[in-house]
Amino acid sequence: MSETQKLLMLPGPTNVPPRVMRAMLKPLIGHRGPEFKELFNKLLSKTKKVFETKGDMFILTSSGTGATEAALQNITDDGDKIIVNVNGFFSERLGEAIKAYGGKPVILGSEWGKAPRVEDFEKIVKANPDAKALAVVYNETSTGVTVRALERLGEMCAEHDMLLMVDAISILGGDKLPVDDWNVDMCVTASQKCLMTPPGLAFISVSDKAWTKIKSKKINRSYYLDLQMYQKYIQDGYTPFTPAVTLLYALNEACDMILEEGLPARYERHRICAEAVYNGMEAMGLGLYAEKESRSHTVAAVNSPMGMDEGKVRELIRTKYGIDFGGSLGKAKGKMFRVGIMGNVGSADIMTTVGAIGSATSELGFKAKVDEGLEAARETLSRLPGKVN
Amino acid sequence: MSETQKLLMLPGPTNVPPRVMRAMLKPLIGHRGPEFKELFNKLLSKTKKVFETKGDMFILTSSGTGATEAALQNITDDGDKIIVNVNGFFSERLGEAIKAYGGKPVILGSEWGKAPRVEDFEKIVKANPDAKALAVVYNETSTGVTVRALERLGEMCAEHDMLLMVDAISILGGDKLPVDDWNVDMCVTASQKCLMTPPGLAFISVSDKAWTKIKSKKINRSYYLDLQMYQKYIQDGYTPFTPAVTLLYALNEACDMILEEGLPARYERHRICAEAVYNGMEAMGLGLYAEKESRSHTVAAVNSPMGMDEGKVRELIRTKYGIDFGGSLGKAKGKMFRVGIMGNVGSADIMTTVGAIGSATSELGFKAKVDEGLEAARETLSRLPGKVN
Repeated sequence: MSETQKLLMLPGPTNVPPRVMRAMLKPLIGHRGPEFKELFNKLLSKTKKVFETKGDMFILTSSGTGATEAALQNITDDGDKIIVNVNGFFSERLGEAIKAYGGKPVILGSEWGKAPRVEDFEKIVKANPDAKALAVVYNETSTGVTVRALERLGEMCAEHDMLLMVDAISILGGDKLPVDDWNVDMCVTASQKCLMTPPGLAFISVSDKAWTKIKSKKINRSYYLDLQMYQKYIQDGYTPFTPAVTLLYALNEACDMILEEGLPARYERHRICAEAVYNGMEAMGLGLYAEKESRSHTVAAVNSPMGMDEGKVRELIRTKYGIDFGGSLGKAKGKMFRVGIMGNVGSADIMTTVGAIGSATSELGFKAKVDEGLEAARETLSRLPGKVN
Repeated sequence: MSETQKLLMLPGPTNVPPRVMRAMLKPLIGHRGPEFKELFNKLLSKTKKVFETKGDMFILTSSGTGATEAALQNITDDGDKIIVNVNGFFSERLGEAIKAYGGKPVILGSEWGKAPRVEDFEKIVKANPDAKALAVVYNETSTGVTVRALERLGEMCAEHDMLLMVDAISILGGDKLPVDDWNVDMCVTASQKCLMTPPGLAFISVSDKAWTKIKSKKINRSYYLDLQMYQKYIQDGYTPFTPAVTLLYALNEACDMILEEGLPARYERHRICAEAVYNGMEAMGLGLYAEKESRSHTVAAVNSPMGMDEGKVRELIRTKYGIDFGGSLGKAKGKMFRVGIMGNVGSADIMTTVGAIGSATSELGFKAKVDEGLEAARETLSRLPGKVN
């Protein structure tokens, strides 16, 4: 195993600040003692601030998928209709997963690289007034597409007595998502994305409206992901099952850094960094996978030029420049690569990234206008306030 | 949060060697790249050695309960009978959990502190020849009781075309459990016990016989714990969902230490350390919760003397001696405390533990024969070969 520190411009895991890494070495504690209780209470309070919610918060030992499963499984009775937008690999997975929980996914499909519009959601909600929930993949990580209509969808669900479940795995902490203000009933994320913590933890916020449905659920098909069990234990300050304590230490430090920076500044930093990537790529002559109005501020999908195999571009950048990008998945396979812009990311990371993409695609035979790309990125990043890295 | 390093004589999490803790600070890597593949393949091979299996191995990001859920959920169709021994808090939980997976638990109950005998298992297996599996809690963590008949149960299940699923969460790596030799079809454990790794990872071994049942399962009710999905990804060297990479680093180091020591030496060390605790307690005048023939080598349940509240004993030892013990659960509540003897444990830890229990119970008014307890422990520990801590 190489010990070289790579620049992780992946759509997760992301670069974890040294301060957060070091926190993992705090002395281990038991999870049924007073030290744990103190730590866990602090974490619940800090994560609620990051989610902007006064609802309940659950921290699971699992990947993000474990938490979307906990969210959906706990509100789905056999045969329940759940509407879900499908416009990429992960939203496709979510649609499939709903079936496993006994639900009937009602798919709002749209082309990969595009997001459905408010009108599309309105239409499908009207056509399925008996649907129990609308599940929205706020940021489709596989295509770099954000559903910008989310705030309006919250209002719609509130009007329709429908739950709004949001998969915010690759966006929460990097872009606006005030859970309570936007009427999000269940919001899910994971540690290794914009929360800049190592992978292994996942999060679910739960509103009162969601609790009503959870408590009326007829059969619980999971023990490990039973939110009522978590709720029972959390009242005493504990988790029902052994939690990943070293990761909780890291999370605690990461939350402090997030709250020290402040959410608005943090979102602005992500937005400017993402725009610098987009502007840099376009000025260089590279195409972007996502439609302009839906481009994510946390993951940029860049088309591989001239039909070049994206795997080759990434491999060259990985080995020669020490930067890791994400590959393409599902039906986008081979066509584009993905640049994560999440968490601990600033000017230096973006400039290095843009330069490496220009240089590597040039080496592979594409006439990248590297100068112009770098200039566009630099110009965009000049809007970043103060010290950013 | 206090930064003091406590001696964790808990039945999990246990004392993680500094070498294992430090491994978590290796540079983070993406879980879809070649470095991950190399690491993960090594880990599968090392953990299979620890399980003594040539079957399949799955490493989940979850607590042990997540892995028992994955094991049982993947072999249970609606209405399937699963026989399970219930003799403590965790086996009770397992019986409950089987219902969540659509199964019908057939309970082989026995008094807390005791283990069912081979004859009891034979009788219930004969009475339920249609049961699909026998689930055995090899080591009931809440009472410090080991089912010593396990090897024979494997033969029985092999004869009856019944699967043997073993919950070995609090024992694997600390006591004998050659998975293939003993015909164990699915063996489950977790990182934070005898594997001396921080919490957050869990393990399942799967035999060919178990695969036949898994593949014939009619409905998969989980996506996150779907073993067929794990199997599909593992063929390329990956996990289907984001794994807890920092914990995998720690596990890699812990496996090296385990294999360097050797399994027989490791089991012997655990056995002698446990006996030193038992002998020390008895010589001191303290009672033990578990019947002699079933006493665990990885967790010792010690009766609180004179009806003394066990919480008070533990609190005094925690604050004055810096040692953490486990409390009592369920129907044993208040009556006893539990000493974990797991993983990174040796002479010094045991002597400190025995001394602290003697001193603290004396302070609380019990006439502990501390001298005799220490002498008995010392004498037992003298059988430990070589350097142990």
